[in-house]
Amino acid sequence: MLGLLRKHGPLSRGELGKHCGLSRTTLYDILAELVAEGAVVTATSQDAPRGRGRPAETLTLNPDAGQAIGIDFARRGLHVAAVNVAHEIVGSASEPHDADLPWEERVALAERLVGSLTGAGSGALRLGALSAIGVGVVGAQVEDRREQHGEHGQQDEQDEPDPAPHPAQLLLRRRFGVPVLLDNNTRLAALGEAIWGAAAGGQDVLYLRLSHGVGGGLVVGGSLHRGAYGLSGEFGHITVEPGGARCDCGGTGCLETVASIRAVLDAYRGAGGRAADIPELVKAVRAGETAALTLLSGVGARIGEVLAAVCNAIGPSVIVIGGELTETGPALIGPIERALHDHVMPVSRHRVSLRRATLGEVAGALGGIALVLHESPLLSRYPAGPDLAEVPSMTQTRHP
Amino acid sequence: MLGLLRKHGPLSRGELGKHCGLSRTTLYDILAELVAEGAVVTATSQDAPRGRGRPAETLTLNPDAGQAIGIDFARRGLHVAAVNVAHEIVGSASEPHDADLPWEERVALAERLVGSLTGAGSGALRLGALSAIGVGVVGAQVEDRREQHGEHGQQDEQDEPDPAPHPAQLLLRRRFGVPVLLDNNTRLAALGEAIWGAAAGGQDVLYLRLSHGVGGGLVVGGSLHRGAYGLSGEFGHITVEPGGARCDCGGTGCLETVASIRAVLDAYRGAGGRAADIPELVKAVRAGETAALTLLSGVGARIGEVLAAVCNAIGPSVIVIGGELTETGPALIGPIERALHDHVMPVSRHRVSLRRATLGEVAGALGGIALVLHESPLLSRYPAGPDLAEVPSMTQTRHP
Repeated sequence: MLGLLRKHGPLSRGELGKHCGLSRTTLYDILAELVAEGAVVTATSQDAPRGRGRPAETLTLNPDAGQAIGIDFARRGLHVAAVNVAHEIVGSASEPHDADLPWEERVALAERLVGSLTGAGSGALRLGALSAIGVGVVGAQVEDRREQHGEHGQQDEQDEPDPAPHPAQLLLRRRFGVPVLLDNNTRLAALGEAIWGAAAGGQDVLYLRLSHGVGGGLVVGGSLHRGAYGLSGEFGHITVEPGGARCDCGGTGCLETVASIRAVLDAYRGAGGRAADIPELVKAVRAGETAALTLLSGVGARIGEVLAAVCNAIGPSVIVIGGELTETGPALIGPIERALHDHVMPVSRHRVSLRRATLGEVAGALGGIALVLHESPLLSRYPAGPDLAEVPSMTQTRHP
Repeated sequence: MLGLLRKHGPLSRGELGKHCGLSRTTLYDILAELVAEGAVVTATSQDAPRGRGRPAETLTLNPDAGQAIGIDFARRGLHVAAVNVAHEIVGSASEPHDADLPWEERVALAERLVGSLTGAGSGALRLGALSAIGVGVVGAQVEDRREQHGEHGQQDEQDEPDPAPHPAQLLLRRRFGVPVLLDNNTRLAALGEAIWGAAAGGQDVLYLRLSHGVGGGLVVGGSLHRGAYGLSGEFGHITVEPGGARCDCGGTGCLETVASIRAVLDAYRGAGGRAADIPELVKAVRAGETAALTLLSGVGARIGEVLAAVCNAIGPSVIVIGGELTETGPALIGPIERALHDHVMPVSRHRVSLRRATLGEVAGALGGIALVLHESPLLSRYPAGPDLAEVPSMTQTRHP
C-alpha cells in the first residue's frame, strides 16, 4: 500500500483498491491501520466535482513519518543526510571537527546538524517521526553490530561473541529512541554510490576510495557485502609492492602505502615536488608538471592492477572511484583505466565501466540511509531494489 | 509440510498438525494435494496398538519423487550424481571420454551413467520422479541461461540479449522433460564444496581449482556468486607476472600461466625435471627432489598472493583448494599458506581457514544438484540454507 502511494502519489480508496486487487474489507482494514500508525494521512480532494455526494477522500504518505537519517562519523568531520517517508532526500549537511572530539560531542553535533535539515515543502524535519538511523564509522573492521536483525546477521562459523555496541550507537539510541544500524563508513559510501550516485541502479558495484586511507566496498546483487567477518572491501590492503613500505594494517607494500593522500604527497615531495595538500598537487598537475604526472601515472597503474584483480574475482558491472585523490582528474584516472584494461580478463573489458564518484563527502551518510531502508524492519514494507533506486534519482536535484 | 517430513521422518496427520499449527481443514487439503502430486505417500503404521480403532496412517516423503540430478560435463569426462526427495545423495559416477565427443553422445553417456545410480534402499533411480537437472559445463563465461527463473536472472545494466540455451540444456530438456539449470562447472564445484565438502555449512567461501585450467568460484551468503556478467571467480586470470607468458584468455602473466598443470609440468621440465603428468611430479616431490620442491614453492607463493588479494577484497571464512595439482600436498599447500599469511590483512589472518577440497571429481555434479535445490521452483518449497546443509552431511557416508 505504501509502495503504491509512493509510486502514484495521492489516491482514493477506490483507486488503491483497483491497483492492489484486495477486497474492500481487507483494504479498509489495512488503510485504517496505516492511518492510525501515522504512516498515511487522509485529505479531502479539492478537485472533486460538487453536488455529486461528498468529495472522495484521498490518501497520501505522511511526509513526516518514516523518516530516516544517515550519519557519517568520519575521522575529522560529520556528515548527515535525511530522507522523508517517500524516500526523497530532504537535505544533507557537513561539519569538520578535530580528530579527537569525544563521542558525546560528536553525537551532539550530529543532532544539531540533523535539526538544521529542512524537508522539501514540509518545514523542518520532525524527529518524532524518525524510524531509524544508519551510521557509518571509521575502522577497518566493523563487525555485525546491527540490532534486532537476526536474519541478516550472518554469524560465521567461528561463533565469535557479538561485539559490544559502538559508542555512537549507544548514544544515538539513547537520544532518539530508534534502531541505530552501523557499518564501516567507506562501505556505506559504496552503498550510497550504488543507489543514488555514480552507479545508481547497479546491482554489482565495486567502490574504491582514495583518501587519507585507501578502502572500499562491494555491492553484490544490490546489497552491501560484508564478508564472513565484516572485512569485505579492504582493497587498500592488497599487496602491490612485495617487501614495500610498512602499512598501518601491519602488512607491507599494501596499496594504501602507495595510493593514500599521505603516500602520494610524500612521494611527490621525494621527487622534488612541492605540495602540502591535494589542492596544491592538483595545481601542479594542471600546470603539466612532469614530476606530478609521472608520480600519478605510477600510482594509477598500481590502483588499476588491484581493480583488475578484484574485477576478475567478482565481476562487477561498475567500478566507482571516490576520495580526494581523484581530484587530480585524468592524470590519475587515465593510468587507472589503462592498467585496468591491461589486466582485467579481455572478455570482461567492455563489460565493466569505471566512473568517478558523484556523491562527494555525503556518500557515507546517504549510504547510512540506504542501510536503514534495506534492513530496518520498520521500513522493510517499502519495495526495495530497482524501485528504490528510481525514486530518489527523481528528487536528487533537491539535494544540495 | 515437506520440510517437516524431511526433518522428522514419517508423521501422522495429527502430529503434522501439531508441528505446523495449521487448521485441520487446511492441513488435510495440503496433504491431499501432496499425495496427489506424488510428493508424499501414506502408510499404515505397523506399531499402532491393536483394538483401539483403525491404526493411524502416517505420511512420509516419497523417496522416488523430487529427485534431482547433477551432471558435470567436464572437458574429457562426465560426472553425475543424484539425490532423492530427502536430499540424500543416492550415488555418483564418472566416465572419461575424448575431448571432442559430440554433445549428443555426451548426453547419451550421461543418461547411461544416471541410470546406473541406485538409490539407498529404494532400488534404481526412477527417472519419472525427476524434478530438475543441474548441469555444469566448461567455459570461462557462462551467462545466465537459467530458464523460467526471472527473479534470479539479475540482468545487468547492459541489457544484453539472453544467450541461446547451451546444447546440453536443450538435449537434456528434450530427453528428460524437466528444467535444466546450467552454470560454469568450476563455480558449481565451489557450491558443492560449500554445501557438502570441505567448507560444509560455510556461508562465504572462496574455492580455487588448480587443474588444466585455473579457476574458481565464490559462495557469498550461502549462494553461488555470479557477478554482473557471469564472470565471477576467475582467479586464474589475475595477473601475477606483469609482462609474463601469454594466457589463453588473451592476457599475459595470469595465475593460470604459472599454476595450471601444463604450466607447472613445463616449468618442471625446464628446470631439468622429468615428469609427464601430475602423478610423476608427485613421485618426485615425495622423493624430496629439489627442483620439484623449489618449483612448487614458487608456484604456491603466487597462488597465496592471489588468494590474499581476493580475501582482502571479499573476506571469506574458508578457502578451499581443489584440482589435481593439490595432489602434490604440503609441498604446494605449505607455500600457499605462508604467502596467504604474509599478504592477507593481519587482522584477517586467524579468521580465514585454508582447506583442501574433499569432494574430488564429483564436486561439480554435486554442485549442480545444489544449484537445483537452491533455485528450482519445483524444489524451492524445501527449506534452504543451514537446514539444507545439515541433512546431506548426515547421509554423506552413503556417497561412494
